[in-house]
Amino acid sequence: MRILVIGGAGMVGRKLIERLAREGRLGGKPISHLTAHDVVAPARVEAPFTIETRVSDLSVPGEAEALIKDRPDVIFHLAAIVSGEAEADFDKGYRINLDGTRFLFDAIRVVESYVPRVVFTSTLAVFGAPYPAEPIDDEFFQTPLTSYGTQKAICELLMADYSRRGFLDGVGIRLPTICVRPGKPNKAASGFFSGIIREPLAGQEAILPVSEDVVHWHASPRSAAGFLVHAATLDTAQLGARRSLNMPGVGASVGDQIEALRKVAGDKAVARIRREPDPVVAKIVSGWPRTFNPARALALGFKAETSFEEIIRIHIEDELGGKIAD
Amino acid sequence: MRILVIGGAGMVGRKLIERLAREGRLGGKPISHLTAHDVVAPARVEAPFTIETRVSDLSVPGEAEALIKDRPDVIFHLAAIVSGEAEADFDKGYRINLDGTRFLFDAIRVVESYVPRVVFTSTLAVFGAPYPAEPIDDEFFQTPLTSYGTQKAICELLMADYSRRGFLDGVGIRLPTICVRPGKPNKAASGFFSGIIREPLAGQEAILPVSEDVVHWHASPRSAAGFLVHAATLDTAQLGARRSLNMPGVGASVGDQIEALRKVAGDKAVARIRREPDPVVAKIVSGWPRTFNPARALALGFKAETSFEEIIRIHIEDELGGKIAD
Repeated sequence: MRILVIGGAGMVGRKLIERLAREGRLGGKPISHLTAHDVVAPARVEAPFTIETRVSDLSVPGEAEALIKDRPDVIFHLAAIVSGEAEADFDKGYRINLDGTRFLFDAIRVVESYVPRVVFTSTLAVFGAPYPAEPIDDEFFQTPLTSYGTQKAICELLMADYSRRGFLDGVGIRLPTICVRPGKPNKAASGFFSGIIREPLAGQEAILPVSEDVVHWHASPRSAAGFLVHAATLDTAQLGARRSLNMPGVGASVGDQIEALRKVAGDKAVARIRREPDPVVAKIVSGWPRTFNPARALALGFKAETSFEEIIRIHIEDELGGKIAD
Repeated sequence: MRILVIGGAGMVGRKLIERLAREGRLGGKPISHLTAHDVVAPARVEAPFTIETRVSDLSVPGEAEALIKDRPDVIFHLAAIVSGEAEADFDKGYRINLDGTRFLFDAIRVVESYVPRVVFTSTLAVFGAPYPAEPIDDEFFQTPLTSYGTQKAICELLMADYSRRGFLDGVGIRLPTICVRPGKPNKAASGFFSGIIREPLAGQEAILPVSEDVVHWHASPRSAAGFLVHAATLDTAQLGARRSLNMPGVGASVGDQIEALRKVAGDKAVARIRREPDPVVAKIVSGWPRTFNPARALALGFKAETSFEEIIRIHIEDELGGKIAD
C-alpha cells in the first residue's frame, strides 16, 4: 500500500507518519511506501517502509499531478495556510487552501480507474456564531466567519461532489483544537489552551489571556492521528453523501483545564499560570464554537479522550517521557 | 443608478428587466442605464432608461472586468448552467457556475472603493436528502446532491466571505421552483410542476409523471422578480454574516395544484392532465426538499404567494392576458 501525506511537516502530519511508521500497516495492509510532502522538509522518521520526502508548493500547476504519479492508495491532505495567515493574506489563503486542494482533486479526477481514499482535514471554523443551544449537532449549517473557514467549507463541498461522482473516495474530518500541542508557543489565538498546560509542566510560566469560564473543544495529538487512520480505513458506504464529520473531543472550560492540571501536577504547576487578560484574544475566542454532539462520528467509531485529565496524561506520556518539572 | 444583469436572457432575468423597465427606478433611485448580459442576446425591452445588451461568456478571463468597467451600483448575477447540464458536463458546470462567479467577485474585489450590491440567485438544491422533520428551517446544513447544488453552495460561501471582507455587498436568494413557468415545456425534471397548469390552461394536454402526493415549494415568476428587487434594496446590516436566504413560497402537493387548477379553470382543464408515471422522474423528485419555514426571509420582508390558486391567477394575468382556453 502506498500513502501520500500532503502537509507532512506539520505537527499532526508528523504524529500521523510516526504512528504509521510504528504500525507498518494501515487497515491491515502493509505499507510499502510513503511520500511526505510539504513546503518545508518533513522530519525524518524511521519506518519499516520507504519514506520519501518531497518539498514543493501544491498550488503550482502540475505539482498535484506529480504527487499522485505513483497512484497512492490513500492520500492524507493536511496542508493549509492557517487561519491567521489566510485572513492576513487573502490571495495566498485562496491559492493554497482552495486552489491547491482543487488541483489535487482534479489531478485525481482525470486519471481513469483511480479512486483513492482521500482524508481531508477540515476545521470546526466552518461554523460561525451565533450558535444554537449547545452542544452543536451534526446538522448545523456552515457559516464560517474567516476566509480559512470558508476555504475549508468549500473544499468539503468539492470533496463530497467529487466523491459522489466516483472520482475519489473522500472523508473530511473537522478537528477539535489539538491540545496539548507540543513544541514552542505559537502566535495562534488558540495557543494559550495548550500553553497553560505545556509550559507549567515544563517548569515555565504561561500566560492566560481569557477568563476561566471560556469553554472549548479539545482532543490530543494522539487522537488526531487516530482520527486520520480511522478515516482512512472506515467503510465510506456508511457515510452516504455526507462526507465531513465533526470529530469527538473533550468540552472543557479553562477552569476545568486548570483543575485537571492541579490534579495531575499539583498547585505548584498551577501557580505558573499568570493571568493577563487580552480583550483582543477574548473577542476572537468568543466567536468560536464551544461544544459538540458528534453523534455521527462516534457511531462510526471515531474516538477521543473522555476527560481533560486524560489529555494532560497523554502529553506527559507522548512528549515528556513520563516526567514533569518539579 | 447603473444596473448589470448577468443572465439577462433567462426567464427570471427577463421578468426582472421588465419590472425595472416598468418602474424606472430601484430602491427609490432612478435607473440611468442597464446592461443585460448573457451568452445569447437578451430580448429587447422598452424602458425609460438605456438598455445595453452584451453577449459573451463570463467564464472567459477578462470578461468580468469588462462587465463591471462602468461600475454598476447593483449587479444581479443570475447566470448559470442548469442542474441537468451541470451534471452531464462536469467541466462546463464548474467553469461557468463556479469559476465564472469567482471571476466576477474577484474583478469587483480588486477595484478600490467599489462595493456594489450583488444579488446572487442560488437554489434550494444546496440542500440534500435526508431532510429533518419538515418544514426545513433556516439553519439546516447544506449537503447538495448535484454538482449544480455544490457549485451554488460554494458561490454562497465565497459571496459571504467577500462581503465580510468588504469587497462587495452580497445577498444570496435561494429560489423556490418557479411556477407557472411561461413558454414551452423544457426537459428539466421539475418541468411538470408548471406543465400540468400551463398546458391545460392553454387547451393542451400535459403529462404528470409522479403521484399526486408529491409536495414541492413554489413561487411565481412575479415573486421571483420581487425577491430580486427586494434583495437589491434591503439593508444588508440586518443580514450579519449570513448572506443567503431561503425564499418564501407555497408548499403544495401535486394534488393541491390540481385542485387549484379545478377551482380556477374547471374540470375540463383538469381532464387535460394525463398520468404517465415515470420512475426516473419520481426518483429525482424524491430527493428534493419539500417545504420550508423561511422565517428570516419573511422577517426581512420577502414576499411570495400564499396559495397555489394565487400562483395560477398570476400566470393567467401576466402571461395569458387574463384569458384561459375553453
